[in-house]
Amino acid sequence: MGFKINYCERDKVALVNVEGEIDMYTSPNLRDTLLPFFKKKVDAIVVDLSLVSFMDSSGIATLVEGLQWSKKEKRKFVLSGLGKTVFNALSLTKLDNVFTIKENIQEALDWISRQGV
Amino acid sequence: MGFKINYCERDKVALVNVEGEIDMYTSPNLRDTLLPFFKKKVDAIVVDLSLVSFMDSSGIATLVEGLQWSKKEKRKFVLSGLGKTVFNALSLTKLDNVFTIKENIQEALDWISRQGV
Repeated sequence: MGFKINYCERDKVALVNVEGEIDMYTSPNLRDTLLPFFKKKVDAIVVDLSLVSFMDSSGIATLVEGLQWSKKEKRKFVLSGLGKTVFNALSLTKLDNVFTIKENIQEALDWISRQGV
Repeated sequence: MGFKINYCERDKVALVNVEGEIDMYTSPNLRDTLLPFFKKKVDAIVVDLSLVSFMDSSGIATLVEGLQWSKKEKRKFVLSGLGKTVFNALSLTKLDNVFTIKENIQEALDWISRQGV
């Protein structure tokens, strides 16, 4: 199965759509996409995972790295659209308590605007 | 500053001593050291960080990867000897609640033996 990343920026929010499998071969690609957003003038980054069918430990590590960057750079960092497989991968190590997770992109955007960004 | 990893195995416990700075250049080295232990017949892995002076987000991501492996392979995974800098890096994203963290190697070993390993 393929792997694709699309992203767009609107009203100082970056929306990153990931599609396919996030594993040790594709996660560096995700990392390279995320990092520049923390250097840009966006206030929040939403990573939508609704089209992600599989995520291994390297993918999770990459999301944790994004979370670390977000805290350092004082950006909001939200995951949305987690399927069961992806959610289970996170909850295995209780990381579901560490991330801000929203049902879908709209809920993520609503949450961000409520935060006063 | 240099980077060194030493490890030994005793009574089915692997003890990994890390020394120096864990950053994007050295963390692949830590990853390559940790991974084989999850394939071996050890019941627990202790990563002692008392000689680690600095750890960036890639180092944290590597530890999270170790934690994921440990849950999948049903091994205990314990961090010990965290200095203030390293602990703060983890607590920034509330990861201090996700890892089992002990004051020093002895406390880590005591904890492991109390778990009935």
